[in-house]
Amino acid sequence: MADIIAFNRGVPPAESFPKEQLIESARKVISNEGDQILQYGNPLGYEPLREWISNRFNGTPAQVIMGQGSLQLLDIFIKTSLEAGDMVFFEQPTYDRTLTLFRRAGMELKGFTLRNGVMDGDEIEETLRNGIVPKAFYVIPDFQNPSGAEMPLELRKRLIRLAEEFRFLIIEDGAYRHLRYYGQNLPRLIDLNPEHVIHMSSFSKMISPGMRVGFMVAGIEIINRLGKYAEDSFISTNFLNQAIIYDFIQRGLMEDHILFLKDLYQERLKSILSALENHIVKSGTWIEPKGGFFTGVNLKQGFKQPDANMLTEKNIVLMASHGFFIEGGDDFIRLPFCALTPAQINEGIKRLAELIN
Amino acid sequence: MADIIAFNRGVPPAESFPKEQLIESARKVISNEGDQILQYGNPLGYEPLREWISNRFNGTPAQVIMGQGSLQLLDIFIKTSLEAGDMVFFEQPTYDRTLTLFRRAGMELKGFTLRNGVMDGDEIEETLRNGIVPKAFYVIPDFQNPSGAEMPLELRKRLIRLAEEFRFLIIEDGAYRHLRYYGQNLPRLIDLNPEHVIHMSSFSKMISPGMRVGFMVAGIEIINRLGKYAEDSFISTNFLNQAIIYDFIQRGLMEDHILFLKDLYQERLKSILSALENHIVKSGTWIEPKGGFFTGVNLKQGFKQPDANMLTEKNIVLMASHGFFIEGGDDFIRLPFCALTPAQINEGIKRLAELIN
Repeated sequence: MADIIAFNRGVPPAESFPKEQLIESARKVISNEGDQILQYGNPLGYEPLREWISNRFNGTPAQVIMGQGSLQLLDIFIKTSLEAGDMVFFEQPTYDRTLTLFRRAGMELKGFTLRNGVMDGDEIEETLRNGIVPKAFYVIPDFQNPSGAEMPLELRKRLIRLAEEFRFLIIEDGAYRHLRYYGQNLPRLIDLNPEHVIHMSSFSKMISPGMRVGFMVAGIEIINRLGKYAEDSFISTNFLNQAIIYDFIQRGLMEDHILFLKDLYQERLKSILSALENHIVKSGTWIEPKGGFFTGVNLKQGFKQPDANMLTEKNIVLMASHGFFIEGGDDFIRLPFCALTPAQINEGIKRLAELIN
Repeated sequence: MADIIAFNRGVPPAESFPKEQLIESARKVISNEGDQILQYGNPLGYEPLREWISNRFNGTPAQVIMGQGSLQLLDIFIKTSLEAGDMVFFEQPTYDRTLTLFRRAGMELKGFTLRNGVMDGDEIEETLRNGIVPKAFYVIPDFQNPSGAEMPLELRKRLIRLAEEFRFLIIEDGAYRHLRYYGQNLPRLIDLNPEHVIHMSSFSKMISPGMRVGFMVAGIEIINRLGKYAEDSFISTNFLNQAIIYDFIQRGLMEDHILFLKDLYQERLKSILSALENHIVKSGTWIEPKGGFFTGVNLKQGFKQPDANMLTEKNIVLMASHGFFIEGGDDFIRLPFCALTPAQINEGIKRLAELIN
């Protein structure tokens, strides 16, 4: 029986983890800073790493909080800055775990469809002018999960203007931003207006998800509320891992590691795009991502998602698509490509094509 | 000016951290298991450590969840098993961070005074028979924070009988249980009846608080609710640190390390008891702890807590006592003794005596 090919989770491959370098960083930081990092610490996190991050945002460490991944910080942001019944806007499809968090907190959710990877700015503006104004608008502008889309500069600027006019907060998730395989960086939304944007990101896709080191950059008042809630909930986060990551950066290893990741993943992106071209062109459309972990297929009229039995028979695993949608999702398939080899990708897409064509 | 002597936080001293052994364990686990522990993992935590813990509770790994410290798990337990308005009983005084968590969740709180370290079982039973029945009763039976008290066996058994009759859950916090300097272990409440008790503890006091590795042992249904909430909130916890701690245990280092801690802390306990005897006998009473991090002084009639100015002048730091109480606390002073040297302890108690006598 053919090997299982898992398209279900957006995770980095084990071969991407810089084990030897992490061992050396662990040795150094426990030896040199063990007295501090093995103790309880500041609920906002390990100061040197917060300072390094804040420099990349032209801010101060007081605007940065570290978490056990960035999702934890989004959860705490929801608990400290939003209330049940508040309206939140999303790209649709969007990151399923984020939708789950906002749903759990009893928010009203409204999605704006990504058409060929882009939301319709007119539709957003019209919604706002009709009096439907959110407290927050969650977006992943760079290599979106699950579609792979990049938000165009014009829409970034327009969203900021609308946030200013209608006084809502943009939550910018930058988890994939540093993994660009083609083209030039566009400005982050937080760079366009730090008053109206909070930025969340992590080292999960740059070094290791299991180390659980994420961060949020926001105004000091928001960060202080998060810090108080974090301290009351779990005293402080894990400084050992934050110190390991900071040491990894200080040793100048990050730049080379990112280049290594880009080489590894760009080849896999090429593989999936060519496999889609070879096998799915009849049944679906997709965007060509310039970075990140994902592409997503939109099935053409008349083509249907494979059901669970068909997937089991072909030994492929997909994530249930409706998780990415507030409503609908029947014609979308997310395809993470980084944790599969080119051979697996080609074989997996071939099997998928046999089910949907 | 004399050095500051800080009696405010119940933390282990930096000299207790087994740095060299942790470096070696970090090297081993990243090298041998990096592919797994640097990846996202089971929301319940690192399986080998959960299995090791479950063996110590005659349970199964499915009854154990790991957290970023045990307080995080208590917070998630509150969010998944209790509701605002639910009644919760406590020893009084009790761990201040726990009170904060239950208060934040809108619980009704009722305390039972520790008199000479023991709650009045008759008072508890009468309260229950009068129809005031809690959803949960939070206790720290072994070397309680902040009093240092140990719950007598008779009261342990009686609490279990009452929990069975009135169908409430006991939350047993065992953070200090393994640090016994005198006498024999009493049974844990969870050993007396695992149906009515959930047990929370951590490696913070045994290895390092900064590693943030805590756990909760409970019925499978409760654990599954916690696991679902944990996954939705932060995907998974930090496996690297859990693996380091498991390796530390597997190498047979834990037993010797606990003996080393007991030697170190027993000497400090002797120092504080003799300093109290020498300086505070006129103004206060205290219990003589058989283990743990704390003793607490109850001021005699006519003696008052030093105020902030007096403490600053004498260069000593105390924790504000009302945090340990649902109401009151004016005549109580918590004295953690593990993170101070015998000389600091003696000098600190002398200075304190000058303020209260």
